[in-house]
Amino acid sequence: MELWFIEKQTERFGITAKIKRTLHTEKTDFQQLDVIETEEFGNMLVLDGMVMTTEKDEFVYHEMVAHVPLFTHPEPKHVLVVGGGDGGVIREVLKHPSVEKATLVEIDGKVIEYSKKYLPSIAGALDDPRVDVQVDDGFMHIAKAEDAYDVIMVDSTEPVGPAVKLFEKGFYEGISKALKEDGIFVAQTDNPWFHQELIKNVYRDVQDIFPITRLYTANIPTYPSGLWTFTIGSKRHDPLAVEESRFHDIETKYYTKELHKAAFVLPKFVADLVK
Amino acid sequence: MELWFIEKQTERFGITAKIKRTLHTEKTDFQQLDVIETEEFGNMLVLDGMVMTTEKDEFVYHEMVAHVPLFTHPEPKHVLVVGGGDGGVIREVLKHPSVEKATLVEIDGKVIEYSKKYLPSIAGALDDPRVDVQVDDGFMHIAKAEDAYDVIMVDSTEPVGPAVKLFEKGFYEGISKALKEDGIFVAQTDNPWFHQELIKNVYRDVQDIFPITRLYTANIPTYPSGLWTFTIGSKRHDPLAVEESRFHDIETKYYTKELHKAAFVLPKFVADLVK
Repeated sequence: MELWFIEKQTERFGITAKIKRTLHTEKTDFQQLDVIETEEFGNMLVLDGMVMTTEKDEFVYHEMVAHVPLFTHPEPKHVLVVGGGDGGVIREVLKHPSVEKATLVEIDGKVIEYSKKYLPSIAGALDDPRVDVQVDDGFMHIAKAEDAYDVIMVDSTEPVGPAVKLFEKGFYEGISKALKEDGIFVAQTDNPWFHQELIKNVYRDVQDIFPITRLYTANIPTYPSGLWTFTIGSKRHDPLAVEESRFHDIETKYYTKELHKAAFVLPKFVADLVK
Repeated sequence: MELWFIEKQTERFGITAKIKRTLHTEKTDFQQLDVIETEEFGNMLVLDGMVMTTEKDEFVYHEMVAHVPLFTHPEPKHVLVVGGGDGGVIREVLKHPSVEKATLVEIDGKVIEYSKKYLPSIAGALDDPRVDVQVDDGFMHIAKAEDAYDVIMVDSTEPVGPAVKLFEKGFYEGISKALKEDGIFVAQTDNPWFHQELIKNVYRDVQDIFPITRLYTANIPTYPSGLWTFTIGSKRHDPLAVEESRFHDIETKYYTKELHKAAFVLPKFVADLVK
């Protein structure tokens, strides 16, 4: 017997992966959570039928969420990750020696629990003493925070289910307030092949609030279209104007200081979305 | 009834697309040729089960094959395309006013025939008076040519079936001979997630023959992993040292002069393949 997982990334297009077995399947309080062992991409976390992360390609997303803003900020000490219960972004955040505390606010404790069990190379970082894990609503956490963080990273699911609020303008206003005066935030903002309106709308909203707004991309094979976007809002520091001396050596498989800049050079049809 | 096309891009991973109908299916002298109408990507050309091009995303591949070498060469007059019977690369080549003649050598006349019929926005350029279409073996054409072309583009299928010879060192030696003294060539060289050995081997072979060898990438949603590589071999002109004045305005949806350079900035794991 062959078992194949299918994710319909749109109503009309998808990916399919041969699996060895289902490791876990559960309807949590927030979403359908599945962990499967795939032959091509190793263990894979699937939420509401959508691939969140896999052992083989997770490094791209996690490195590109974390290192672009962390090398942009001159001395990030306190970092907040909203979502990201798999721990991958936190793992990358901890590679920056200036970081004293990394707070993770994940709404679904089951994501943390089963990531630790089945994705230990990703979630292991959550046990680091610098990490404060809170199982809580990221939207509410942001609403209550003030002048608290140097860098905020929004590592959400796609804008369905519990993550809908994380793509609204009010959330970005809250982020601005939660950031210190020279703070910077980044959010994953889906792909420019199937979700052009989302990218446009988020960019416009962030631009209304932050003096510096930038879009960059990375290649993630298991995400729709393989081309993923990230939107940065920054109060003072420009990710395109990072001084050479700011970069220090960290171990990565995707990010480099050269790619830090090149990732902001967009294909024309993507650049046109945020003109 | 729903019909879904599946391409197993590896033995263990693939894409799937909902289709409206099959427009053509035929076993040619060289390969299985299918044209299907998909809901997400428009009409799609499939050879031996592998997606070659679609109406929605074809511009990425065709622009990036053509414009990178054509803007690198100071005055490309005679261009050869090996393969590429769908006509997309030729369409982009003709956007360069210096080009006097574009020769297409496609081994399978049926690819040309059915591209003209079902992909007219791509294949229409093949009727341009500057284009010389030859239904012939590209390998043999190269073997006979000497000092003939400014730019050669290898727009092959993946290295199975008729295209196997187009990934061998002897072919690149032939290309060097077929090029003029300041000639440049580019070949599509598959993706760095599933075909690392291929990229390494081609790069090493090209580097043995050409003084300037470079690798660049582009995002193509319907190709395996979404990240595609192209290898350039050049006798004199460096794609990374194109003078600003060399660029002229052309209509594109992916390529820009900024992306021309950024496309060579590789993710670390890709850069490591060709170190």
